[in-house]
Amino acid sequence: MKRVLLIVAYDGTEYCGWQIQPNAITIEEVLNRELSSLLKEEITVIGASRTDSGVHAMGNVAVFDTESRIPAEKISYALNQRLPQDIVVQESREVPLEFHPRYTDTRKTYEYRIYNATHPMPLNRRYSHFVYYDLDVDLMQAAANYLIGEHDFASFCSANSQVKTTVRTIYSLDVIRDGHEVIIRINGNGFLYNMVRIIAGTLIQVGNHLYEPERVGWMLEQKDRSASGPTAPAKGLTLVKIDYLS
Amino acid sequence: MKRVLLIVAYDGTEYCGWQIQPNAITIEEVLNRELSSLLKEEITVIGASRTDSGVHAMGNVAVFDTESRIPAEKISYALNQRLPQDIVVQESREVPLEFHPRYTDTRKTYEYRIYNATHPMPLNRRYSHFVYYDLDVDLMQAAANYLIGEHDFASFCSANSQVKTTVRTIYSLDVIRDGHEVIIRINGNGFLYNMVRIIAGTLIQVGNHLYEPERVGWMLEQKDRSASGPTAPAKGLTLVKIDYLS
Repeated sequence: MKRVLLIVAYDGTEYCGWQIQPNAITIEEVLNRELSSLLKEEITVIGASRTDSGVHAMGNVAVFDTESRIPAEKISYALNQRLPQDIVVQESREVPLEFHPRYTDTRKTYEYRIYNATHPMPLNRRYSHFVYYDLDVDLMQAAANYLIGEHDFASFCSANSQVKTTVRTIYSLDVIRDGHEVIIRINGNGFLYNMVRIIAGTLIQVGNHLYEPERVGWMLEQKDRSASGPTAPAKGLTLVKIDYLS
Repeated sequence: MKRVLLIVAYDGTEYCGWQIQPNAITIEEVLNRELSSLLKEEITVIGASRTDSGVHAMGNVAVFDTESRIPAEKISYALNQRLPQDIVVQESREVPLEFHPRYTDTRKTYEYRIYNATHPMPLNRRYSHFVYYDLDVDLMQAAANYLIGEHDFASFCSANSQVKTTVRTIYSLDVIRDGHEVIIRINGNGFLYNMVRIIAGTLIQVGNHLYEPERVGWMLEQKDRSASGPTAPAKGLTLVKIDYLS
């Protein structure tokens, strides 16, 4: 038996997120189905990040165990022949049998994309959140700076999340304007449920002069979801990559 | 009566191009239908560029005449409420009654996008042509340089085109790599039928070492479509903008 790691990219538009659920199509379900069909055994993947409905990925990670003699590196090519066009495995490789994609130290990078113009642009409508009021990116960056470092992010976490601790570390959080696009790029050691989308929703309010940047420091201190801003829509969010440290 | 100019953006994936045709949905048809419904009179748009099936636009141009008292600048907002999400008017404004979008001197800018990696990326699959062999962008630029200037582009024009002259001027033609993306950006005073896609298909062959860059100079001299490379797929092509000079 061997354990195989997949780097998985997907357009989340047509899926109800990663995790299998009844009466809805998910990324995990499609991978299990096509891997089982390809390898002719019952395959169950374990995902690193159970992204929400509508969220995209360039580099989510999944592992599975197989008795197959197909070399691990070849599986990506064979699997992509079977997968729909909106799910593409970028790489497959063998990892130690004890490797677990969630119980291993990681740094994850997410991007939240905003299209900031008078009218929407059809060519990015699936991957960007459209905002028509002019965003002040300098204010957004000033607010973002309060979130960098180790903090209790209880204010930036949806209420239905069940975790032992809401302390996380953000290593970098950059707000970049590129023409009409505003990109929030965030790197951290883990993210709570809806955390990136609540950060994005809050920074958008700051960029629209509804909150002062300093208010984000106050939000952190409250440790209460009602203190922070709205949850930005799923379609603007992309899991860019997961780096494994050990 | 007034003449109104529209700057029209669209994702061409679901359309059989710009121009009205039987039994197929086109951009022109959707604009005519929604403008007529909004303005409560029979509206017929005249497009600047009759893009092919599957080709995208960020800035195609159309004009139409109307008796409506709605200010020209407001029409974009009202029209976008009615249009599908994959067609969005970026701007509307009044122009002189004698303005014609095709019989006026213009410079058009197109981009042809290639995604050059081992596996496709789902997030750009609608807007990029996927090429898995490693493209040599320096060779592509060397070949592109032969096409800059005024030339007879008969070799870079599909046979079924009916035009008075195949002489056109390309002002700039840049081949740019940005990570896994290769972007061919071209600016000229007019383009023959399939000209940008044949140029892109030819430059891809050069980037794959199938033709020497100098061969593109020879292709121009032949004035024969069979001398040049294949027509690259429509989905990689976007009409970026049209600048009117007079």
